[in-house]
Amino acid sequence: MAESEKELNFEVVYETVGRSVGKMRNEISISWLGANEGPWEMATDEGKFHGGENTAPPPIAYWAAGFTGCIMTQIRAFSKRMRIPIDDVTVKARFAWEGRQIGREPYVTSPKLFGFDIEIDSEAPAEDLTRLVEAAKKGCFIDQTMAVANDVGHRLKVGDDWIDV
Amino acid sequence: MAESEKELNFEVVYETVGRSVGKMRNEISISWLGANEGPWEMATDEGKFHGGENTAPPPIAYWAAGFTGCIMTQIRAFSKRMRIPIDDVTVKARFAWEGRQIGREPYVTSPKLFGFDIEIDSEAPAEDLTRLVEAAKKGCFIDQTMAVANDVGHRLKVGDDWIDV
Repeated sequence: MAESEKELNFEVVYETVGRSVGKMRNEISISWLGANEGPWEMATDEGKFHGGENTAPPPIAYWAAGFTGCIMTQIRAFSKRMRIPIDDVTVKARFAWEGRQIGREPYVTSPKLFGFDIEIDSEAPAEDLTRLVEAAKKGCFIDQTMAVANDVGHRLKVGDDWIDV
Repeated sequence: MAESEKELNFEVVYETVGRSVGKMRNEISISWLGANEGPWEMATDEGKFHGGENTAPPPIAYWAAGFTGCIMTQIRAFSKRMRIPIDDVTVKARFAWEGRQIGREPYVTSPKLFGFDIEIDSEAPAEDLTRLVEAAKKGCFIDQTMAVANDVGHRLKVGDDWIDV
């Protein structure tokens, strides 16, 4: 196998620790394990209408920023690798969900629509830029996660035991 | 239909606008449309090892904070609705992905494992807390999004047109 065809497999693992404070505020430490990066500290809250104190952006704002940044970062990282020179990248994205609530019961949500409009300032031909965005989709951790159904575990501590919920 | 059984449907729509600056830094405005909340400003960057300048946390850190905050917020919001009194909530979460790279080609990623360990300080019986976490999973926008395969749109501007990638 030629040097240029060597296969490399790697893992990316993040850990978060969140603590509730105030009415609806959460203080969260985020670490990138293995890479020895972080911890970064971020806080979420809700507006007063939703019972919070508006001390920080709501959780979905962070999630949306992360998803947007992911695809943008991958476009720039891969433009070097693929030798497709680009200048500025501008992305406008929309994320929509639906909720359904009966009486005062807890509501149930479902995803509705997610989309990115991507503008790349570049003199490269359109087919190269298309290849670049295709590669960025496959390299973006969040995009790839969205594309499949994921089994997210939820364990609740009961006494000294952890039970799956 | 009794007042208490009335069905309410609602939408939650977020919009982001991201601009690339510096080497790998992105500056992102996030708005919650309809709710008239935001815009919030967040920046992402990469560490020097990944070609960035380490001026801000990486995209996945925001995404992980948002996901963690979402489930925590829903637990507290629904504890009031379900009349299950709770005090502090602590969540520890892990998010793992794999990447595969051949030679210098752009790598391809895939999700591997996502899990939350949830501790709730409460005198409520375990079955009530279990019901609460179950409801929080169904009410958490991000949890519900993870559970299904989503078709995320990517449009690239070419000249005056938008093409689907």
